[in-house]
Amino acid sequence: MGEPEIRAAVEETAVQIAEMEIRGAATIADAAARALERQATESDAEGAEAFRREMRAAARRLLDTRPTAVSLPNSLRYVLGRMDGDSVESLRASTVAGAREFRARLETAQDDLGAIGANRLQDGDTVLFHCHSTDVLSCIEAAVERGTSLEAIVKETRPRKQGHITARELRELGVPVTLIVDGAAGRYLDESDHVFVGADSVTADGAVVNKIGTRPLAVTARERDTPVVVAAQTLKLDPTTLSGHTVEIEMRDEREVVGDDERVEIGEITVENPAFDVTPPRYVDAIVTERGQFPPESIVFLMRELFGEQSTRPWEDGS
Amino acid sequence: MGEPEIRAAVEETAVQIAEMEIRGAATIADAAARALERQATESDAEGAEAFRREMRAAARRLLDTRPTAVSLPNSLRYVLGRMDGDSVESLRASTVAGAREFRARLETAQDDLGAIGANRLQDGDTVLFHCHSTDVLSCIEAAVERGTSLEAIVKETRPRKQGHITARELRELGVPVTLIVDGAAGRYLDESDHVFVGADSVTADGAVVNKIGTRPLAVTARERDTPVVVAAQTLKLDPTTLSGHTVEIEMRDEREVVGDDERVEIGEITVENPAFDVTPPRYVDAIVTERGQFPPESIVFLMRELFGEQSTRPWEDGS
Amino acid sequence: MGEPEIRAAVEETAVQIAEMEIRGAATIADAAARALERQATESDAEGAEAFRREMRAAARRLLDTRPTAVSLPNSLRYVLGRMDGDSVESLRASTVAGAREFRARLETAQDDLGAIGANRLQDGDTVLFHCHSTDVLSCIEAAVERGTSLEAIVKETRPRKQGHITARELRELGVPVTLIVDGAAGRYLDESDHVFVGADSVTADGAVVNKIGTRPLAVTARERDTPVVVAAQTLKLDPTTLSGHTVEIEMRDEREVVGDDERVEIGEITVENPAFDVTPPRYVDAIVTERGQFPPESIVFLMRELFGEQSTRPWEDGS
Amino acid sequence: MGEPEIRAAVEETAVQIAEMEIRGAATIADAAARALERQATESDAEGAEAFRREMRAAARRLLDTRPTAVSLPNSLRYVLGRMDGDSVESLRASTVAGAREFRARLETAQDDLGAIGANRLQDGDTVLFHCHSTDVLSCIEAAVERGTSLEAIVKETRPRKQGHITARELRELGVPVTLIVDGAAGRYLDESDHVFVGADSVTADGAVVNKIGTRPLAVTARERDTPVVVAAQTLKLDPTTLSGHTVEIEMRDEREVVGDDERVEIGEITVENPAFDVTPPRYVDAIVTERGQFPPESIVFLMRELFGEQSTRPWEDGS
Amino acid sequence: MGEPEIRAAVEETAVQIAEMEIRGAATIADAAARALERQATESDAEGAEAFRREMRAAARRLLDTRPTAVSLPNSLRYVLGRMDGDSVESLRASTVAGAREFRARLETAQDDLGAIGANRLQDGDTVLFHCHSTDVLSCIEAAVERGTSLEAIVKETRPRKQGHITARELRELGVPVTLIVDGAAGRYLDESDHVFVGADSVTADGAVVNKIGTRPLAVTARERDTPVVVAAQTLKLDPTTLSGHTVEIEMRDEREVVGDDERVEIGEITVENPAFDVTPPRYVDAIVTERGQFPPESIVFLMRELFGEQSTRPWEDGS
Amino acid sequence: MGEPEIRAAVEETAVQIAEMEIRGAATIADAAARALERQATESDAEGAEAFRREMRAAARRLLDTRPTAVSLPNSLRYVLGRMDGDSVESLRASTVAGAREFRARLETAQDDLGAIGANRLQDGDTVLFHCHSTDVLSCIEAAVERGTSLEAIVKETRPRKQGHITARELRELGVPVTLIVDGAAGRYLDESDHVFVGADSVTADGAVVNKIGTRPLAVTARERDTPVVVAAQTLKLDPTTLSGHTVEIEMRDEREVVGDDERVEIGEITVENPAFDVTPPRYVDAIVTERGQFPPESIVFLMRELFGEQSTRPWEDGS
Repeated sequence: MGEPEIRAAVEETAVQIAEMEIRGAATIADAAARALERQATESDAEGAEAFRREMRAAARRLLDTRPTAVSLPNSLRYVLGRMDGDSVESLRASTVAGAREFRARLETAQDDLGAIGANRLQDGDTVLFHCHSTDVLSCIEAAVERGTSLEAIVKETRPRKQGHITARELRELGVPVTLIVDGAAGRYLDESDHVFVGADSVTADGAVVNKIGTRPLAVTARERDTPVVVAAQTLKLDPTTLSGHTVEIEMRDEREVVGDDERVEIGEITVENPAFDVTPPRYVDAIVTERGQFPPESIVFLMRELFGEQSTRPWEDGS
Repeated sequence: MGEPEIRAAVEETAVQIAEMEIRGAATIADAAARALERQATESDAEGAEAFRREMRAAARRLLDTRPTAVSLPNSLRYVLGRMDGDSVESLRASTVAGAREFRARLETAQDDLGAIGANRLQDGDTVLFHCHSTDVLSCIEAAVERGTSLEAIVKETRPRKQGHITARELRELGVPVTLIVDGAAGRYLDESDHVFVGADSVTADGAVVNKIGTRPLAVTARERDTPVVVAAQTLKLDPTTLSGHTVEIEMRDEREVVGDDERVEIGEITVENPAFDVTPPRYVDAIVTERGQFPPESIVFLMRELFGEQSTRPWEDGS
Repeated sequence: MGEPEIRAAVEETAVQIAEMEIRGAATIADAAARALERQATESDAEGAEAFRREMRAAARRLLDTRPTAVSLPNSLRYVLGRMDGDSVESLRASTVAGAREFRARLETAQDDLGAIGANRLQDGDTVLFHCHSTDVLSCIEAAVERGTSLEAIVKETRPRKQGHITARELRELGVPVTLIVDGAAGRYLDESDHVFVGADSVTADGAVVNKIGTRPLAVTARERDTPVVVAAQTLKLDPTTLSGHTVEIEMRDEREVVGDDERVEIGEITVENPAFDVTPPRYVDAIVTERGQFPPESIVFLMRELFGEQSTRPWEDGS
Repeated sequence: MGEPEIRAAVEETAVQIAEMEIRGAATIADAAARALERQATESDAEGAEAFRREMRAAARRLLDTRPTAVSLPNSLRYVLGRMDGDSVESLRASTVAGAREFRARLETAQDDLGAIGANRLQDGDTVLFHCHSTDVLSCIEAAVERGTSLEAIVKETRPRKQGHITARELRELGVPVTLIVDGAAGRYLDESDHVFVGADSVTADGAVVNKIGTRPLAVTARERDTPVVVAAQTLKLDPTTLSGHTVEIEMRDEREVVGDDERVEIGEITVENPAFDVTPPRYVDAIVTERGQFPPESIVFLMRELFGEQSTRPWEDGS
Repeated sequence: MGEPEIRAAVEETAVQIAEMEIRGAATIADAAARALERQATESDAEGAEAFRREMRAAARRLLDTRPTAVSLPNSLRYVLGRMDGDSVESLRASTVAGAREFRARLETAQDDLGAIGANRLQDGDTVLFHCHSTDVLSCIEAAVERGTSLEAIVKETRPRKQGHITARELRELGVPVTLIVDGAAGRYLDESDHVFVGADSVTADGAVVNKIGTRPLAVTARERDTPVVVAAQTLKLDPTTLSGHTVEIEMRDEREVVGDDERVEIGEITVENPAFDVTPPRYVDAIVTERGQFPPESIVFLMRELFGEQSTRPWEDGS
Repeated sequence: MGEPEIRAAVEETAVQIAEMEIRGAATIADAAARALERQATESDAEGAEAFRREMRAAARRLLDTRPTAVSLPNSLRYVLGRMDGDSVESLRASTVAGAREFRARLETAQDDLGAIGANRLQDGDTVLFHCHSTDVLSCIEAAVERGTSLEAIVKETRPRKQGHITARELRELGVPVTLIVDGAAGRYLDESDHVFVGADSVTADGAVVNKIGTRPLAVTARERDTPVVVAAQTLKLDPTTLSGHTVEIEMRDEREVVGDDERVEIGEITVENPAFDVTPPRYVDAIVTERGQFPPESIVFLMRELFGEQSTRPWEDGS
């Protein structure tokens, strides 16, 4: 029995994800589901088992591109989880349906999340932002569309200054923006009614993995009693944490922190550039998803509803 | 009676301070004392009262250059406070002696402070640094000279990245340095045995005014039970706060935060760039001065010892 | 097609609720269900759709009387949610059955809650009370009936001094009462084994909306490690908060705070009289309902069990 | 109608439990299920009702041996809960099947729990232990088997010094152990990456009942931000707490605390020796069970899944 | 040797203090000093020792009127502490001088305190007030006189509603006032820049004894990070606490809490009406006195400066 | 010039201290002062400088016996600090007078401290004790002598169970004692009105070094709002900490923790037995000395009063 055949569309998608032409949690998930759909449509497997093997191989190919992402395996889990039947045709049909359903849900999820997050905002509120998150922006956009008048404090978010993107997009929504350095956030929390941040992933014990700097912001916000809201589609829930797995923190290129010229000036030093930190649930007031808002301590049950008690790995042989 | 004559040396020093050719709390204080000494030496005032008027005018000229600094008026207070006598000669002699005494004390203060701060450090300790402070560096230098082996975590300290200066100077002392962005400090507190920061000024109610970002660092350090040490010569104690005056926080040029090009990209926003924040005493474990170490809540009594119950303004007419 | 006809019984109930002749969360809910039953029984609608329109109109009439209450829409949701069928008769029968079921559950809910709350009380315990809540009293009554010996500290609960009602009812149960002003609660927490309070409503993020003064009481109780128990029937759970809606705090008549005579004496001032405050889940140890006790962070799942993921508005046309 | 006949195997098991020849939560639960199986197998009841009465009587006999344990009634609930049928034969078969299923689950539960707990541990971590718990040891064993290198700090855990058992078993697993007195734990938390403790029982409001000393350890761990993990099979969940029941703390023999000789030396004193204390959920980061890990605030929903909304007492007549 | 003769002026003052015709800490202190001055002036004692005995007896007579006040013994300590000499004339002169000095200081103390407290206030600040304190009002008056624009939130301060007095006086100063019930303070702390309260007494361990309700207000203010300022003349410092004495809390008439009619309605209850509570120093940011501002933890040294290491009781025979 | 001659009395005292025949902070200090007095009395030095050299050598001999104690150098500082004069006779006389003065002060200090500590205790109070401290017992004895009725909770204080000594001495004072294991303290704090502990030393930054287990006790007491009082004569203040020196924690014999037999049973482990821990000032409510009570944050000024700004080392040559 030879290697299962992976279609060109899958290979192409895999390369684009690996090379970050396709990026952003939702975009990656969408592309992966579409690639699986193409694999199913185009497969010329000759029996049910051969079809299944092909689909699993395609999924593994996609997964290998970004082994630590959360949305990618969640997408694969969804689609393969709906693959069902005894014949190639029934397997193909169910897989295609699953992929389409997943992508349709994805399309509405952010809008639904935005509508829910917007409900927490009152006219005249000031919101403090860290980094850049389309889920967070979706809340603001929904609020603005309803006519809620808001003001924004935006932390620049070193090292990559994604706060600048947030600032620009808030400006495009017509929200007045004050930009500050990260260290100044404490001072501006007094004037803020909410902190809104996104998430890279959310774990079963209620912790929020997000851009470095989130945790000290949340700790300081609690000291001032400013509520911290995390906007995160259920795509960000990491089902492997149901069984205790911890999230590995990516260390990024040090040149994001110190330019080569600066480096020469300083001399021989180590630079560390962790991409994320982990905020325990006690510093988060609510996690807003497209399925409603939750205290972080209860998100585990949403995970179980969505993924079962244990995260599956349907791309493995024999599963 | 005409305007009291201010000597060229004073005028020149005033200009250099105003234009920041002379900068740094101790350097300014030293220059101001030297300028008063020159004024006293070169004065051709014809009577005791005229001499006094001249000296006060010279002090006011210097004070006007940086009305919110703390070391400058402390220097003037010291020197004018020692001016004593009934004749020009006795006034001149006492003023010159006062200025020299002040400058001599200044010279030893940082070394004394460094020796005390170094006593808090143990072989093998890791110290986390924010911004750049010669008082802090003096502690590390003293420790290194005794053979204490240290490691350093340095926050870059946006917007002006004075952490780079600290990193370079620590390297020159042979201390291994890990540089991080400000938002990453929380993560590195777990590995740190101490936080060492300087102070722009220290107030009678025990609060520490220091570079923006100090307070969230101190709050987060408390959450991890990492002790926070403030290294600050008594020159930084602000005696006007004994009578309830609060410290005004300087707002600096927004171009330190956003470059012109970035600005164009983002669109119409406000940028706020507060230079300092205020850390309440409950987040500080010790203030190390050249006169010993103190819990921040007791610094008021050192202030009273040094400045009396009320801060004087000996440069005012009639005082 | 004309306006749907609303029966006199509904109109009468609506007026009584609006004029507060019918008051108290459970009493209002019961009256509303009964009114819907009367509407169903007496309706002479000629087709299924006409019947449905009438029922929805009746529900809206009732809802308009107290637009911010929680028990009223929960009652309407329950009854209309059980209205089912294709003919007037089947719709009428299912509606009547739903109304009766709701009212029967209501009747037992408080007793069930009381039995559960009483399980937390030990012989010899002292309980501190804020405001007046029949749910809370039900717990005490159940405990007393089992022979548990209790003592009570009762805060008077300005402005309306509902603590006096609580004190009187506790006396009727034979519980010794010490009455104190609201500001004295801190001192008496040392002698208290529990704080018991009711709720106006409970939100999806685990916050408890209750009579003004609850939050500072809960914060102070935490400082002394005295557990805070909220007794609240599931009728108080606000399903609109599942989708992020926040609770609006009613501002009441300022004459509850300052009498006209006092007012004249004081002069021109503003008086603000918010009826409720919001206690975050981190200050509440348990919420006792008729369905068991819950940490506040998990109440969201009870809400979802009872109301579904999104709160319905079955009184709206087209729903 | 005479007393239902209890088989000798049940009686023997009851005696062994009472005399602590059978001890440990899981061992007791296993023995109780096996005894019920024997009762069912050997019963010569002549009708369905007589069989049921016998089974209930056997369960009560077992329950009486340790009225405050949690695993024992949970075992009885499971087995009697599966007893189903209209004839002696169907009742016997279903009971036997239930008992075997329970015992099979028990056998795998600790391994499953261990695999999940091990996922929280990283190579090089130091773990601090209190008392002795086979659930905790199972996590460490699983980690060691995967090649995770760990170090251990073990509190001796007065009065019975079960820490010595933990130390010995960790040694047998090859984990380097540092043993300390209980009061020294604070100092060693700085060097610890996790605190792992077991549980005597877990309550619906998320509190953990465990060996005396757990709560101060957890409070101090929070002060240093060291995560506290509770390893507890679902067998330890106490379903009676769903309806508000509180856990009674056993007071043990004072000779565990003071030997007779010491007693004579000290003179006339009271000795109190509470076996357990209660740690509120806010000091616990995760509860690891064989069904996954949970924030303590959400454990109530696992309880409800496993035991229903109210704990049953299937051993009572008429139930 | 007969009873020392107490002059009519002393007796009259004593009666007025006892009957609360003379009330308020400063007014009582002033009257007591004046009474001692009259005693000294009018004494016809025939020898130094007789004069001293008379003065001590007069002091004791005054002291007996309000045995738990703090300003009264502080006044007596001051005046008797300055009584010095070997002859009646020198004793008389020194006593009169001491009394006048004390009263002169008293006159300026509140103004000095007000000027210092006003320095903490910025234009546009909102201040939250509890109870009524002339020291606090003095700060506000000084600020208003300088043109500082302020807004006020005033707690009514049950049971005696001294907040109404504060509200009226603030109105007279032109400050806009919002009056609230005590339980609503938490909500209004978000809008407040400072809490200002007075003190009944301040103890050596830094605790502030003040009107019941101060401590929960301070605890809640800390939760929101709103600074709490205590305005208290040094007359309020209780030197007996230097040697560990604790402050007894006066229990006042229960009719302040419940009127007779209300009482009848409620039935047989206990009413407790503690006048004061004790706020630990960790909840107070600064104590403003006429001698400057202090962190509460350092007030012990001001006490020692003013009263010596141990509080004297110069009114006792043989002292 | 040969070695200065050290008298036999000094040598004998040194040996007794080294071999712990003389032990306890006050006893050691007394013996050291007495030894210096004997050295001074018996010296046959032939000139002032020789006498001084001898005295310094004697002091160094004593100091070497316990290099980390605090009371010993404080005793030597006191006595040598009073040695004054130009001749052997005047030096001898002043030294003898200094030693006697020191010893007389020592004799009264504990009684004075006890009288002050007793003032914090009210009739009916329950006090919780850790370890054994004669300073603490002195407070209780003074209270009992005044007729204050107290109850005691005593932690056994592993590893050396000094709680047994405390229990016995409290019994001898007639105080009812409940003995508990260390881990049970949390539970008994609810019933305790005060925690009283002694100190091994107190540092300039307000930290209290005391028997291992003090810090977790103080942290847990704060969680329950039970005040923590440290009873410590000024002899325990460590003046070297004024200049930043930290206190080294003694590691004691591991056989105090694990007996040889237990050790064999457990297998190859490390045992660590730190004698003390360090409690930061924020967990201590008051330090009671013979000079009054102080918040821990202000103890630095008492140190400066007693020892000057820098701790002297008068036993060094050339000092």
